[in-house]
Amino acid sequence: MKAITLNSTQPSRLLLTEVQTRSLMPGEVRVLIKAAALNHRDEWCRQGRYPNIKDGVILGSDGAGIVSEIGEGVDYSILQKEVIINPALNWGDNQKVQSSSFEILGMPRNGTLAESVIVPVDRLFERPQHMSWEESAALPLAGLTAYRALTYQGNIQSGENLLVTGFGGGVAQFAVQFGMALGAKVSTSSSSPEKLEIAKSLGVLHTFNYLDHNWISKAVEETNGFDLIVDGAVGDTLNHLIQVAKPGGKVVYYGATLGNPTKLEARKIFWNQLKIIGTTMGSDQDFKNMVSLVNEKKIKPIIDQVFKFEDAEKAFDRMRDGKQTGKIVLVP
Amino acid sequence: MKAITLNSTQPSRLLLTEVQTRSLMPGEVRVLIKAAALNHRDEWCRQGRYPNIKDGVILGSDGAGIVSEIGEGVDYSILQKEVIINPALNWGDNQKVQSSSFEILGMPRNGTLAESVIVPVDRLFERPQHMSWEESAALPLAGLTAYRALTYQGNIQSGENLLVTGFGGGVAQFAVQFGMALGAKVSTSSSSPEKLEIAKSLGVLHTFNYLDHNWISKAVEETNGFDLIVDGAVGDTLNHLIQVAKPGGKVVYYGATLGNPTKLEARKIFWNQLKIIGTTMGSDQDFKNMVSLVNEKKIKPIIDQVFKFEDAEKAFDRMRDGKQTGKIVLVP
Repeated sequence: MKAITLNSTQPSRLLLTEVQTRSLMPGEVRVLIKAAALNHRDEWCRQGRYPNIKDGVILGSDGAGIVSEIGEGVDYSILQKEVIINPALNWGDNQKVQSSSFEILGMPRNGTLAESVIVPVDRLFERPQHMSWEESAALPLAGLTAYRALTYQGNIQSGENLLVTGFGGGVAQFAVQFGMALGAKVSTSSSSPEKLEIAKSLGVLHTFNYLDHNWISKAVEETNGFDLIVDGAVGDTLNHLIQVAKPGGKVVYYGATLGNPTKLEARKIFWNQLKIIGTTMGSDQDFKNMVSLVNEKKIKPIIDQVFKFEDAEKAFDRMRDGKQTGKIVLVP
Repeated sequence: MKAITLNSTQPSRLLLTEVQTRSLMPGEVRVLIKAAALNHRDEWCRQGRYPNIKDGVILGSDGAGIVSEIGEGVDYSILQKEVIINPALNWGDNQKVQSSSFEILGMPRNGTLAESVIVPVDRLFERPQHMSWEESAALPLAGLTAYRALTYQGNIQSGENLLVTGFGGGVAQFAVQFGMALGAKVSTSSSSPEKLEIAKSLGVLHTFNYLDHNWISKAVEETNGFDLIVDGAVGDTLNHLIQVAKPGGKVVYYGATLGNPTKLEARKIFWNQLKIIGTTMGSDQDFKNMVSLVNEKKIKPIIDQVFKFEDAEKAFDRMRDGKQTGKIVLVP
């Protein structure tokens, strides 16, 4: 089958190539991919930014498709079902944190950027019927991360003020959509006026361009501060978030694209009783709850652009450059 | 009456002097002080480290004594009662955080380092009968702070691993004692072998000298990491705490004697789903619950040393130099 593999000898570090499929183990299924989607993680795998990156592995955590083959012990009724895949493997039973054997589909295990993928059957969920294949593929990893950030970690309540930073990124778009679905008063920030216009068209109440030198005072004035802030950047901007948090508020972050802060206003955090909370992906329970919310509220992921597998480099470059608003999708 | 006031013209910045008392407002009571106790806050007031520090104010947040006079509208039955004082004024109804009119007894409002103090009647609690006057005076501010850090913020559960840093300080001693009373497996750290010996004699399971270059690996090896860490130092040692926290664990801090961190291991925080939580003092509900625990478990504060008002400078210097193990008490 054709698949997009990591290959450090290529200028693009990607190679669309023929890959031998293996036979199924007990409890596994083969899913024919109808659409797959990119996450920052895929780009970071391409850049070799994680430990234990291996050439030859098929990238991709997000996928949707049709079950074409089942391994020993799997119920026949799943055959030909249209499914999405939960890319979080071996989370374990602890809702607080993943187990030490936790793994994400798409490195080191072969992922979804292929004509088919093999996963344990318990990773499958029925595809949301109100979504296209492209939308279905866009949901899993970023949707799960956003959902856990808002609910298990952020404990968002209806009527609370929510700020989602960096609108345009996959997790940010879901955090905005889920936040609205859960009754929060949603604000978002970006450096792009175009992205902020899209956010407004979705129903976001307040938008802030963080290049604007007075966005902090403007945010406090317009909203009276945020009960919850969902962020993926950190770096020294964490101190800005501390300033726009309402006393007693939370900053939940799922990534640190700007790296470590070089300072932290420690006294403001304790005097204002703030919480800085790290989060990543989510448990099986989080995934199940997220899919329920999406189905109940008929939420559709925002698709930025759809690429063919042959154009994988363009898709990855768009992710690297942060040009997207919504998810970047790839189809075989 | 005699009182210890802030006076920046004195070399010690303290003046034991005769102060005119005022008459009571409706809802207020006068408490004759039997014993008062110091907190870091008093030393920081002496050093002028807060905004709006005023000469002439009577210092002191902690006190215990006997109600000698009541204002209009106060029930007679409180007269002659032996009481402790909750030094947190106007917290408000929000359990998450204090209101904007929150105030701490002892600056700018006259405090407990005097022959008597005037407070609203709702700040009074019956003195725990198993304690001496000195022990009673030692409880309020630090006990409240430790209790909220462990319970409302830290949500400590029986059987969990708790690390309290900086044993010897007032909040730290209560966090150790309350942690044990709540069923946690308690460890503590200090730079002083003598203080760690005292901790062991109290029943602390593991002690760590943080000057020991391998205390972090030792702590992880002996305990498998901490579910909750209660800290008052922060600074760059926050990164050490992040290393000894169990995945999914919390660091709750109530002060930052080492100032702001100059770095923060942001990725470790999100990958391990850690929470960094700021806390200060506590609500009326926290105070009430804390007093209940203390009475139920017959917990007695550790008293470091008792000074007369005439020796206030020595008492403050001991606090400044961090030589104490337990609370420093002053008696009129």
